[in-house]
Formats: sequence, structure tokens, C-alpha cells
Amino acid sequence: MKLRELAERIGGRISGDPDIEITGVSGINDAGHGDITYFAEKKYLQNILSSNASAVIAKEEIAGLSGGERPAPMSVLIVDNPQYAFARALEVFYAAPAGLSGISDKAVIGSNVSMGGDISVHPFAFIGNNTALGRRVTVSTGVFIGENVSIGDGTFIYPNVTIRENVTIGRNVIIHPGTVIGSDGFGYVLEKGAHYKIPHVGGVIIEDDVEIGANVTIDRATVGNTIIGCGTKIDNLVQVGHNVRIGKNCIIVAAVAIAGSVEIGDWVILAGQVGVRDHIKIGSKAVVSGQSGVMTDVPEGEIYSGKPAIPHKTWMRAQSIFSKLPEYIQRLKELEKRSGRPD
Amino acid sequence: MKLRELAERIGGRISGDPDIEITGVSGINDAGHGDITYFAEKKYLQNILSSNASAVIAKEEIAGLSGGERPAPMSVLIVDNPQYAFARALEVFYAAPAGLSGISDKAVIGSNVSMGGDISVHPFAFIGNNTALGRRVTVSTGVFIGENVSIGDGTFIYPNVTIRENVTIGRNVIIHPGTVIGSDGFGYVLEKGAHYKIPHVGGVIIEDDVEIGANVTIDRATVGNTIIGCGTKIDNLVQVGHNVRIGKNCIIVAAVAIAGSVEIGDWVILAGQVGVRDHIKIGSKAVVSGQSGVMTDVPEGEIYSGKPAIPHKTWMRAQSIFSKLPEYIQRLKELEKRSGRPD
Amino acid sequence: MKLRELAERIGGRISGDPDIEITGVSGINDAGHGDITYFAEKKYLQNILSSNASAVIAKEEIAGLSGGERPAPMSVLIVDNPQYAFARALEVFYAAPAGLSGISDKAVIGSNVSMGGDISVHPFAFIGNNTALGRRVTVSTGVFIGENVSIGDGTFIYPNVTIRENVTIGRNVIIHPGTVIGSDGFGYVLEKGAHYKIPHVGGVIIEDDVEIGANVTIDRATVGNTIIGCGTKIDNLVQVGHNVRIGKNCIIVAAVAIAGSVEIGDWVILAGQVGVRDHIKIGSKAVVSGQSGVMTDVPEGEIYSGKPAIPHKTWMRAQSIFSKLPEYIQRLKELEKRSGRPD
Repeated sequence: MKLRELAERIGGRISGDPDIEITGVSGINDAGHGDITYFAEKKYLQNILSSNASAVIAKEEIAGLSGGERPAPMSVLIVDNPQYAFARALEVFYAAPAGLSGISDKAVIGSNVSMGGDISVHPFAFIGNNTALGRRVTVSTGVFIGENVSIGDGTFIYPNVTIRENVTIGRNVIIHPGTVIGSDGFGYVLEKGAHYKIPHVGGVIIEDDVEIGANVTIDRATVGNTIIGCGTKIDNLVQVGHNVRIGKNCIIVAAVAIAGSVEIGDWVILAGQVGVRDHIKIGSKAVVSGQSGVMTDVPEGEIYSGKPAIPHKTWMRAQSIFSKLPEYIQRLKELEKRSGRPD
Repeated sequence: MKLRELAERIGGRISGDPDIEITGVSGINDAGHGDITYFAEKKYLQNILSSNASAVIAKEEIAGLSGGERPAPMSVLIVDNPQYAFARALEVFYAAPAGLSGISDKAVIGSNVSMGGDISVHPFAFIGNNTALGRRVTVSTGVFIGENVSIGDGTFIYPNVTIRENVTIGRNVIIHPGTVIGSDGFGYVLEKGAHYKIPHVGGVIIEDDVEIGANVTIDRATVGNTIIGCGTKIDNLVQVGHNVRIGKNCIIVAAVAIAGSVEIGDWVILAGQVGVRDHIKIGSKAVVSGQSGVMTDVPEGEIYSGKPAIPHKTWMRAQSIFSKLPEYIQRLKELEKRSGRPD
Repeated sequence: MKLRELAERIGGRISGDPDIEITGVSGINDAGHGDITYFAEKKYLQNILSSNASAVIAKEEIAGLSGGERPAPMSVLIVDNPQYAFARALEVFYAAPAGLSGISDKAVIGSNVSMGGDISVHPFAFIGNNTALGRRVTVSTGVFIGENVSIGDGTFIYPNVTIRENVTIGRNVIIHPGTVIGSDGFGYVLEKGAHYKIPHVGGVIIEDDVEIGANVTIDRATVGNTIIGCGTKIDNLVQVGHNVRIGKNCIIVAAVAIAGSVEIGDWVILAGQVGVRDHIKIGSKAVVSGQSGVMTDVPEGEIYSGKPAIPHKTWMRAQSIFSKLPEYIQRLKELEKRSGRPD
């Protein structure tokens, strides 16, 4: 494909040779002859200048920079959002594997199941009674879907996922392998010297455009619903407790654990391995840094760090002292000595 | 169902109208007309007073409080343990889905498998040779059970669980989807410049009334058994290493990781994301707070926090200083200046 | 089996009775009459001296110690590496369960699948098109293998594993149940007010002799490959992000989370629950202690601890002060008082 043709499909203005042949898409360090790569951060300028790529996707000012006094070593496709154009280029060059289509006779499908057009149900999938699948839904090998589940158009469920009863999943949702949706919440009450199990009779609602990683667990509500808001993306091995409500367009990174009844606003970012105590509220656009332990509410727009999590700047100032504590304590002792304190 | 009838089934004394109709059970904030809810913590008194619930489950003194000078806005079902009565009410109103019964002809069942009455084995389940299943056992879709496994009466195994050979599971155990029991422990010995795998020929014993969350991993012992004691409850995504022994009625919250050969007493609580080093002993009734790293033994009844975990009170006092370190260091420097230290 | 015969099979020199009958292998505390156990750490000398084991595997000097003034209470098999000899003894006494052999007619196998000899494919396994399986490969129940996957000789895949398309797995690899290999990396770019998914068109390469625990997740690369080097061992519930490169013979303990594009050298040890930020480099033979958060590169051979992770000795010195902070702050305040600071 000529660079000119690629530009027609993904947008952008060409600086250089529009007829150069593009045969693949590659990362900045691995790109070779025929590849198009992308350049979004100035710190990688040297990598671009020494790259063998045939073309690079970049913002205008970057193209100007390397194309000015020092000529750009390759053609440049100038776009507003290089990373987005890179994603689009990947789509152009690499089609997803076709996979199986149609409904396998090795799947088990319950009664009163409604299905839209272009559905794929793979071998060894199980679909419970009274379930509604929209159009272009894929239910992969080894997936279990319980009763009274609804799945919207275009949703893709990877192998060995378990979705229990009374779960509602929106449109264009992606659920990666091994994930469990609708497991019982972790709730007991002490009675007669034993932990008595509190029934979890609620459900789970996954809104449109959510993506859920591999081996994630999302518990059903005690009553009501655990809710994952529209456009939210969840990485692998994340735990979402019962009755949690996550807003829209959040980013929940791998190995985060969210306890029961937590409320999270929109556009929140929880970095890897963060833990959130039960009943906490995290305001919209808040960010919690990796491995932090959230034990109090986080206000809207704030960045929190540490365990317990506190405002990031406060944490940074305190943490920067931590490794120097031995020196400061030594200085304290010297002061004491000079002031005549008996040691 | 009239409140009177509910009281007959779950116990309690009615203050108010025993003939009021109860049509559902709900949380304190979502309860509407026809719902019964519960009230266990005084901080939620205002929520109850403004609730539209038709009835509330509460302790006597609470009923008196709101029914005294200020009349209770709804009927009250007076019980000793409101949360327990709430759990019972959920059971009355919401039956678990019936699920499939009988043994699917799409399951594979090995030789010399004994089964008690009322067993359910769902499609695509696999049961190995020389396995014994008690009465009322459910083996869901996609479950793998290896050879020489024993499962007690009333145990429920959710979809896509893997139970390897030589595992013994007691009565009324619940195992949530995606969980793995009896994987090899993580043990190697360095020999000739490579990690040589130590065979794990032991087993796992899960005692009665244990509940194990989704996507949990419980490794088999090198020799002997990894043991989960009677009544212990394990949340999602927990790792239990080889030869670990957990006592009775423990609570192990999500994302805890317990290394090999750890010994945990009875009634221990490990909060979310706790890590426990290998060969550690944690005494009965000890509590470890979330994200702590247990690197030394924890005595019976103690509360530990931090990494490394230390007594909670000590940790709290030290941690309360952490965010003020910059201020204290500033004060130290001022003292030095006044005492003439060259900066 | 006589001790003499065991020594012939696993090596070593006998001190004591070569004709004593050995009927099993056991840990140091559980060993009874007929058992052989092993002794590798001096702190367990008393346990050996009071053991009922019929024989013990030990290093020469240890045998000398207990066989000198104080006679060894049992026969000793003298070897260079007792733990290795113990592993070999376990292999001699405990054969792995034979499992199913051959290709089940309840498996689904795609087109253009090549298979070496002695392959086992169990019921409800699914093998995609254009896949190559070497000799003595086992594909267990409920395993999904996508298209264009290659699996080397002697590799064992436990139940309910998901391996997506374009994954290359070497020889003698072990993959424990529930693990997911080749899930999409976690990558989005903000475009028009939404998270736009970056396609992940790369693959995963698992080299020879790798072992991967249960419920692990290893994401595929955006472009190129995520790589797990030869001989590396990964424990349960570990997350490996897209484009990560792990070297040879590393030990990655349970619940570690490694973000995208991290580069890890050879012989690295990441202890339990460690988190590693994206694009970090960890040099060969480095060690990171449990629960640490790696936010800067770790040089070759260094030991790092804490969050953010710093050299272990620095962390230890600072951490040893942490619990005494209240006392030091008190002493600071006393100094201030004596120096006349207004409080």
C-alpha cells in the first residue's frame, strides 16, 4: 500500500514521498524498511532520526523540527493525534482473525434464548435460559452464560469466561478470557459462632463500550447492581466487589482490588495494584498512583498516593525524606549531644 | 407476604403493623414502598427516618429510639442480629436459580466414580477416575475434576473451576468460577545452572463450610496437604501457596497472597492485598490490615499493619507522622541553624 | 525399595544401613518409619535428630556432624545438593497420574493442524487452524488454542487454559490451569472524548522450560512479541503486560504485576506482589523484595525494596527508623523547648 492510500484511509497530510510503499506497522525501535511507525514524545526524536522506517506518523511541529535544518530521514504523515493514527494504521494492516461463525452444534443453548443476526456461538459454550443476545455477538469456546442474561450488539466474549445469572452487558463490550462476572459478593454475618452467608441476589450491569481484561472478577450486588459505566476499561486480574459503582471512561489498571460499595466517578484512573477500602467515594477525574491504599474519600480531580493514600504532592514531599531518615536522625542526635542531653 | 408471615419464617417481634405487605428486600438507600430493609449502625439513622421502606429490621433499642419521642416511620421487625435477619429475608424472597439437574450426557465421567443422590453434573464437565461425589453435589459447566478427588454432600462447584488429582473437599463447600485447586506449588532447586522442579506429590484438603471466591489459586503440598479449615471464607483472586495451613473460620479478603508453608490459626482476618512471607505463623484471632506485608510471626489476637507488618498501634503512631516529615525536618534544620551548625 | 537401590537411581553415598527399607518421601516434620527426608539447613538439626525417618538426605559435613560425637539417628544418603536429591526421590516414589492419552473425539480440532507423536488432546479442548503441536504435548480439558499457535515437544497445558492466536510456546513448558496467554494489551489513546482501543496485533513467545502458574495473564504485544525467556518460572496470579521481555531463568513470585514494555534481564527474582511500572529496565541477577513498587531502573545484581523501590540496604536503614518516628519527633520537640522555641 502506498503512503498516499494509507493517508486516504486514516487521514493526515503527507510531507515527503506519497508513493513510498508501506508494508507494515511497527514500534519505533523495531521498524524496518517498508514500515510506518509513529512519533509522539520528543524524547524519542533520536530513535526516529536513526530509524530505518519508511515513514513516520507525527504531529506537524515534529515534522517541522526534523524536516527543518536537519531533513527528516523518511516521509512523514502529519496528523493531530499520532497515537490514534497509529491505532488506525494497525487496523488497516492487520485484520483480526476471522474466527468461527454461526452457532456450533457442540454448544448448549437453553430455552427462550433470543439472538440477533450474525451471532457466533463456539463449541462447548453454554447459554442459559431466558437469555437475549444482540447482533454480532461472539460467545467463545468454554464460555458459560447463566439465566436471564442480556448481551448487547457487537459484544465479544473470549474463551472460558463465566457470566452468571441476571447480568446485563451493553453493546461493543469486550471481555477477555477467564474473567468472572456475577460471582457472589464477599459478605457474611456472625451468627451462632459461625460466618453466615449473606445471599447475593442482585446483578451486574456492564454498560456500552466497556473492556474487561483477563481473569478479572466482578461480584454481583447483594441487592441492586454492581455497575461498570460506559467506556470504562479494566485491565487484567482486577477485583471489583459487590455493589461497586464505577462511572464512565475510567481506567482501572491491572491487579487493582476494589472492596464492596465503593463509588467511583467518571474519568478516574486507578493505577496498578491500588486497593480501595469498602464504601469509599472517589470523585471524577481523580487519579490514584500505583499500589496506593485508598482509605478515605478522594475528592474530584485530586491525585492521591501512598498507604493510606494522601494528596500526591504531600506524599511526594514526605517520601522524598524517607530514604534520608537515618541521616536526619543522626543530625538530631548530634544536636542533642551538643545541647547536653544524656544519651 | 405480610410482615407477620415473614416474622414467622425468620423470627423477630413486630412493632407496628403486622399486616403490612412486604414484596421485596432492599438496601437502606434503595428501599421503596413494599420493601423491608435493615438498620444496624446508628450512623444510618437519618437514612432510615427518610426511607420509603415499608418495614425495617432493627435491634430493640434502635426501634425504641425511633419509636419513642419520634415515631418510627415504618413497621419494625425487632431481632437480635439485624444483618442475619436481613440475610434470612433475602433467602425467603429470592430463590437461587434452579439450574440444571441430573447428569448431562455431554459431561465426561471416568471409571469408578461414586455419586450420592440428587447430583447435578452439567455439560462439558469432566470427572476423573476414582472420584467420590456426595449427595446434592453440583458440578457446573466446564469444571475439571482430576483423579482421586472426594467431594462432600451439598458442595457447589461453579463453572470453569479446575480441581486437580488427590484433593479432598468437605461438605457444603462453595467454589466460585475460575478457581484452581491443587496446582503445583512454586518450588525449584538450583542444579547444574538451572531451576530444577520439585515434584508436588501432596494434596489439598478443603474442610466443611468453606467458601472460595472466583479465580482463586490454591496450590497442592509438596508432600502432605495444603489445608483450608472448616468455615473459612476466601474472597476472589487469593493465592494460597503449597503446604499452607489455614485454620477455622478465617476471613481472607481479595487479592491476598500467602506464600508456602504459612500456618494461620482460627478466626484470623487478612484484609485485602495482604502478603504473607513463607513459613510465617499467624496466631488465632489475629488481624492484618489491608496491603500489609507479614514478614515475622503475628501473635494470637494481635492487629498488625504496614510493611513489614508491625503492631497496628505502633504503625498508626508512626504513620501519622509520615506526612508531616517535611515540617519536622524543617524544624530540625532551624534548630541546627540556631545551634550554629554549618549548613 | 532399599536405600541402596534408591542411591543407585538418584546418586549419593550411604552412611549407615544400605539395606534399610524406604517406603516413602516426606518433609522433615512429618517423616515416619520407612520415610526418607532431607536436611539442608542447620536450624533444622534438632528436627532431624528427633525424627522417626528411616533415612535422611544430607550434605557430607552435616552427616559428619550428626554422625560424629552424637551418632546419626538414621541412615544418611550423602549428596552435594540435598534438595535436588529430595526432588529426585519424590520422582522415584510418586509417579504423575497417567491421565488420558490419545486424541478425544470430544475435542474440536481445526484444519491444517500438525501433531507429533504421543499427543494427548482431552475432551472439550479446542485447537484452532494452522496450529503445530510437537511430540508428547498434552492439551487438557477445556483448553482453548487459537489459530497459528506453535507448541513444542513435551509441553503440558493444564485444564481451562486459554492461548490466543499467534502464540509460540517452546519445549517442556508447563502451563497451569486457568492461565491466559495472548490477551490484548491494555492500551488506549484518547480521541474525540473517548478511549480508542489500540489494536494488539503482536504475539507472545514462551521459550523452552518455562513454567507458568495458575490464573496468570500474559498479554500479547502491540506489535512484535511479549517474550518469556528460557527456564523462567512464573508463579500464580501474575500479570505480564504487553511487549514485556523477561530473560532467562527468572523467578517471578505470585501476584506480581509487570506493566507494558518492561525489560527484565536473566536470573532476576521478583518476590510476591511486586509491581513494575511500564518501560522499566531491571538488570540481570537483580532481586526485588516483596510488595515493592519499581518506578526506576534497577541495575544489574542490585537488591531493591520499598515503594518507590530503592537499594535494599538504604530502605532497610530508613525502614528501621520508621516505627521509632514518634520517639524521635518527641526528642525533636524537647530540643526545641530547651532551645526556647515557642511551641
